[in-house]
Amino acid sequence: MIGIEDEAFIRSDVPMTKQEIRVLTLVKARILPGDIVWDIGAGTGSISVEAARLATKGHVYAVERNPEGIRLIRANAEKFAVTNLTAIESEAPEGLDVLPAPDAVIIGGSGRRLDPVLDIIAARLKTGGRVILNCITIQTLASCLAYMRAHKDIFHYEAIQVQISRLEAVGPYDMARALNPIHIVTCWKN
Amino acid sequence: MIGIEDEAFIRSDVPMTKQEIRVLTLVKARILPGDIVWDIGAGTGSISVEAARLATKGHVYAVERNPEGIRLIRANAEKFAVTNLTAIESEAPEGLDVLPAPDAVIIGGSGRRLDPVLDIIAARLKTGGRVILNCITIQTLASCLAYMRAHKDIFHYEAIQVQISRLEAVGPYDMARALNPIHIVTCWKN
Amino acid sequence: MIGIEDEAFIRSDVPMTKQEIRVLTLVKARILPGDIVWDIGAGTGSISVEAARLATKGHVYAVERNPEGIRLIRANAEKFAVTNLTAIESEAPEGLDVLPAPDAVIIGGSGRRLDPVLDIIAARLKTGGRVILNCITIQTLASCLAYMRAHKDIFHYEAIQVQISRLEAVGPYDMARALNPIHIVTCWKN
Amino acid sequence: MIGIEDEAFIRSDVPMTKQEIRVLTLVKARILPGDIVWDIGAGTGSISVEAARLATKGHVYAVERNPEGIRLIRANAEKFAVTNLTAIESEAPEGLDVLPAPDAVIIGGSGRRLDPVLDIIAARLKTGGRVILNCITIQTLASCLAYMRAHKDIFHYEAIQVQISRLEAVGPYDMARALNPIHIVTCWKN
Repeated sequence: MIGIEDEAFIRSDVPMTKQEIRVLTLVKARILPGDIVWDIGAGTGSISVEAARLATKGHVYAVERNPEGIRLIRANAEKFAVTNLTAIESEAPEGLDVLPAPDAVIIGGSGRRLDPVLDIIAARLKTGGRVILNCITIQTLASCLAYMRAHKDIFHYEAIQVQISRLEAVGPYDMARALNPIHIVTCWKN
Repeated sequence: MIGIEDEAFIRSDVPMTKQEIRVLTLVKARILPGDIVWDIGAGTGSISVEAARLATKGHVYAVERNPEGIRLIRANAEKFAVTNLTAIESEAPEGLDVLPAPDAVIIGGSGRRLDPVLDIIAARLKTGGRVILNCITIQTLASCLAYMRAHKDIFHYEAIQVQISRLEAVGPYDMARALNPIHIVTCWKN
Repeated sequence: MIGIEDEAFIRSDVPMTKQEIRVLTLVKARILPGDIVWDIGAGTGSISVEAARLATKGHVYAVERNPEGIRLIRANAEKFAVTNLTAIESEAPEGLDVLPAPDAVIIGGSGRRLDPVLDIIAARLKTGGRVILNCITIQTLASCLAYMRAHKDIFHYEAIQVQISRLEAVGPYDMARALNPIHIVTCWKN
Repeated sequence: MIGIEDEAFIRSDVPMTKQEIRVLTLVKARILPGDIVWDIGAGTGSISVEAARLATKGHVYAVERNPEGIRLIRANAEKFAVTNLTAIESEAPEGLDVLPAPDAVIIGGSGRRLDPVLDIIAARLKTGGRVILNCITIQTLASCLAYMRAHKDIFHYEAIQVQISRLEAVGPYDMARALNPIHIVTCWKN
């Protein structure tokens, strides 16, 4: 079952996708047991680990340019006893061309090279495959939407914005503490 | 895997929990294969069906006072070939006392009798069990929080508000269409 | 014109209502030049100062229990050259009975004594007068709604939740930083 | 005082900016009594009317391509006895070049020609003047941000997203009904 608690992951200063966003991302990705998954900009590997637990007979490739992130991905894979997860220190799109063709791609971070990353995905993703982008900036969201609109022959998409607040108990009161909103774009290869 | 598309469920005018909220609710409920689940105010049965697919060796009891809801729950159970789901036409807390003790309880609607419903759950829920409330009104949320604060010896809780907007393509533009916000309260029996 | 920039106010550690919320609160209060305004839980006096600039021929009474708040209210009144503003060190409802009857009341904080505060307002507020509550906790919101529903002969109300995020420029990107949501309840004396 | 109730405006099917957004837009525009204001994509004229009540010794030019909008703008100007407001049937940037140089520009809608509209504003807006954009689409927001980033020598900006929900009384309950979120971008000419 997906939805590991945030506190269960090993992390340092590397930003980590919050549980609720991670869960929605994984649900949108519709990962099946035999799937090959690319997790680009994998950060701490929290999504990679959960994806690997879904793709039990498949494999997850966690691409991350930050060496500290690579260390964390491997530590989390070990902690959760996930063996079908490979961490790859690389800045996408470098390194993507040698990976097996994916059924699902999750993009948590694309650095500043979203279009070439999407070009490779457009070429390699299997028909019916899904690309899920977590966009925390307006520019990444707009670039993704522009790419999808320019490639309607290849992809169709939907997108949501998710805004979560946590109630925090302060004495006899519960006060809402807002988390930053995020857009989740789901793209299907036609 | 959880996260059936909304469109896949049979529904009529009965309000249905949206996919994203359904998924977060199920994740918070942490349903295990052998679990007994009560789904109170089950509506169309969309949560019940997904819970039944998680509690593969357990059983889900969908309690709903609306006869049209009962019809939909059964139709959806049949559509998704779920056999470990029983629809019970009753207005909670009536009917809860004869059910097997639950591991997890989901409350989508409690009519106007939240406190007596929570009293029965407090008595019957297994230690370590979870109660998840989807609150669409301020009064239900406040009542739930007040109950949990008054029963700290039995329960602890956390709560989030979730606000989702869907981007809708209108010509060359994507416009956000807001869904109504909802609070999800997760309570654990100590 | 209302809408002084947050940075223009003198403040210390005392929490201050953000510009957008202050503006919406003042608009809902519909303060006229001759109005008597009570600002209960006035904090830094940011709302009081803006109210005083609207009630040019009236007077604003800023009630605050925190001595540091009282100091800031007076400093801000001086900075903005507002002379029709009196800071009163008191914990409401104490001190309210000796004030002139109000046309508008703004409640930014009521400590834990909302009901007795609303009782005095119900008695003293002029017919057609407005009470605006900024609620940052679920309990204050629920208490306010319950009070208004129990006193339909005296008041009617409407309420909004406001969630604001600021875009923050980070290199070539704009990222949303969420502010905590707040409820604004507007009550009219029938 | 700004903040006319939505119901007070004459309107038909033309979409109207909601009171809360209108108020925040006007506050960000910081309109002074002598100001020249352009309201581009003025719709029903609700913002134009309120701007005209602020620019009491100035003038507001409401540019709108929709003839029905022009009719509504004039009807609302008459209803609120505003005489310093001129409705101009035109699709911006057409028609802007003959208007007096503005102190403040409000853009509620720019059709598909945001860049040429901003080019004229960049040329004509007085130093220290403000441009406020209400963006309901991701593309308009992204285009605006890109323009401002490309013209840092001329403009600086800030932006917020505003999400409002109204509580609706349903029997003994208050349920949140979400309004669609909107981005408000405030740009200052250096």
